[in-house]
Amino acid sequence: MASVGLDELQLAARNHGLPLEALAYPVTPLGLHYVLTHFDIPAVDAATFRLDIAGAVERPLSLRLDEIQARPAVTAAVTMECAGNGRALVQPHVVSQPWLLEAVGTMEWTGTSVAGLLDEAGVRSDAVEVVFEGLDAGIDGAVEQLYARSLSLADARSDGVMLAYAANGVPLLPQHGFPLRLVVPGWYGMTSVKWLRTIRVVAEPFQGYQQAHAYRMRVSEDEPGTPVTRMVPRALMVPPGIPDFMTRERFVAAAAVPIAGRAWSGWGGIEGVDFSSDGGESWHPATLAEPIGRHAWRAWSYTWRPDRPGRYELCCAARDDAGNRQPLAPPWNVGGYSNNAVQRVPVTVRAQDQ
Amino acid sequence: MASVGLDELQLAARNHGLPLEALAYPVTPLGLHYVLTHFDIPAVDAATFRLDIAGAVERPLSLRLDEIQARPAVTAAVTMECAGNGRALVQPHVVSQPWLLEAVGTMEWTGTSVAGLLDEAGVRSDAVEVVFEGLDAGIDGAVEQLYARSLSLADARSDGVMLAYAANGVPLLPQHGFPLRLVVPGWYGMTSVKWLRTIRVVAEPFQGYQQAHAYRMRVSEDEPGTPVTRMVPRALMVPPGIPDFMTRERFVAAAAVPIAGRAWSGWGGIEGVDFSSDGGESWHPATLAEPIGRHAWRAWSYTWRPDRPGRYELCCAARDDAGNRQPLAPPWNVGGYSNNAVQRVPVTVRAQDQ
Repeated sequence: MASVGLDELQLAARNHGLPLEALAYPVTPLGLHYVLTHFDIPAVDAATFRLDIAGAVERPLSLRLDEIQARPAVTAAVTMECAGNGRALVQPHVVSQPWLLEAVGTMEWTGTSVAGLLDEAGVRSDAVEVVFEGLDAGIDGAVEQLYARSLSLADARSDGVMLAYAANGVPLLPQHGFPLRLVVPGWYGMTSVKWLRTIRVVAEPFQGYQQAHAYRMRVSEDEPGTPVTRMVPRALMVPPGIPDFMTRERFVAAAAVPIAGRAWSGWGGIEGVDFSSDGGESWHPATLAEPIGRHAWRAWSYTWRPDRPGRYELCCAARDDAGNRQPLAPPWNVGGYSNNAVQRVPVTVRAQDQ
Repeated sequence: MASVGLDELQLAARNHGLPLEALAYPVTPLGLHYVLTHFDIPAVDAATFRLDIAGAVERPLSLRLDEIQARPAVTAAVTMECAGNGRALVQPHVVSQPWLLEAVGTMEWTGTSVAGLLDEAGVRSDAVEVVFEGLDAGIDGAVEQLYARSLSLADARSDGVMLAYAANGVPLLPQHGFPLRLVVPGWYGMTSVKWLRTIRVVAEPFQGYQQAHAYRMRVSEDEPGTPVTRMVPRALMVPPGIPDFMTRERFVAAAAVPIAGRAWSGWGGIEGVDFSSDGGESWHPATLAEPIGRHAWRAWSYTWRPDRPGRYELCCAARDDAGNRQPLAPPWNVGGYSNNAVQRVPVTVRAQDQ
């Protein structure tokens, strides 16, 4: 891996991933879910907050938070992953938020459905997309902007797409979009606009920076590329044993080692997870637990019985029922998006007398 | 600044600082306080948890969590900072958790006093120190260990030193030491042992790794050095204006710019904060707000009136009533500890028509 410079370190110090031992929790405790903030975290006064629904609608709306909370509520466990997860492991190096593998989490989001609010506002027949715009302001790629992303009308109306005002039973934390955010199950996290201020229904496809320039799959800067959308499958394991502080290398005893993790895909259900203790040469099926929700990761486990002391490279690989499978080597693209190459955990098995 | 490699990036991705805009909150919201975990975050079952108080005491104790919670409770806002804050800004480069300036936070901790529990156990006359040992296991400097630190009897009995089971009104989050941790106001965070399992009163000074080897001020590896203890003074400001995503450079309008921040010292009260817009050439006194607590940071503010568009370097510097003042250049030591050189925030003032 290339080393990272000051710009990337600044991002790594303020944003953070899920410490992988926290994969042990089916629902990620507060403060352990990954956070990626493009600009600054806005401090929003819930008492004066308004959500505007405008554009190509019959009845524009301007709603207080308590009015949104008075609408029919849904709660769902949703696994969310950053599109840049795995970026620091691609070659050649891509300069941006330098995630290794930990930009993921699952929270129980509570909110009201976007489809319901669009029905209230009455979408006009010429509408094609819905633009979600946040309160977070900054400069990206030399363009001053409020963070904004769009969805097609069909995607915005999908089952499970909600405006969330609570997570894990408490009001949103500032860093997760207080007081209101979009949550789009199955899609990478950039879709789930935080500090949501405006929903604008539009008759032309949205050309904002985060839609038309960022978050596109392309292998050279001068091609338009294709949009980054849903999460490709990934399995992660809790690194077993104990770590070395600095290297994070793992040490286990020469005994049966319980391995546990979670797997998810935005393209379908998890069909299977395979485990390898030889760097991906040979694979063994792990046991899947029952799903905890349609939009949440699925637990898996395997009992590893190393046959000798020494160094091993543990891997896990997920496949989904849409036919997608994790690759062994990182795919490359200009933005370093969507790298779901298998996790590799170097482990030393210690002799019994150590 | 030197670039950082994979080992440091692994630490930066799992640990995290306070995004500096969150200095706006007098008490840091959940999930925004800095986190530094040496090993893995243990998952502890509060129902079977025990705290043992052992060693040179008349009446060894083994207490359930509810028994600790039944003792007299205290709540206090305490500012906590990592001893390695500022490490990534020292030269030559020191390899460890690569903090820039953000390893700080203030929470309202609730717990029971350590002095009270020591009185209950009855400290024997030959005792000299108290060792606090956590449940977090790992390897550091080639030594396998449970994380542990000691305090002199006098320091352990100090006013404000508590065993905390709640922060900001809720049970400790896993990453902050659930179900029980030590909180030592005024000292760097390594002192406030998380996932506390054992308090051992000892008749000889503790020689554990984190006490005798790590967290010592020394300018060469082969000297014993002196212990890192209390926080030296530091002021930080909320970076004004809006950021560029990648560089975090700031942009403001050519108008009166409100500057706000917090300052703290473990050696005494904050006596003053000074502000500079020319990289530390000239200084102007900021206004201090009333303290929010004896052990908490103090708010300060200044109205900056730039006289032309262009680039500026904003700085702030705190001094305490014990006579300590922040230096302009980073001090160097082997561990990269206690670097409280003044914050430097590059800002571009834009012309009015931009």
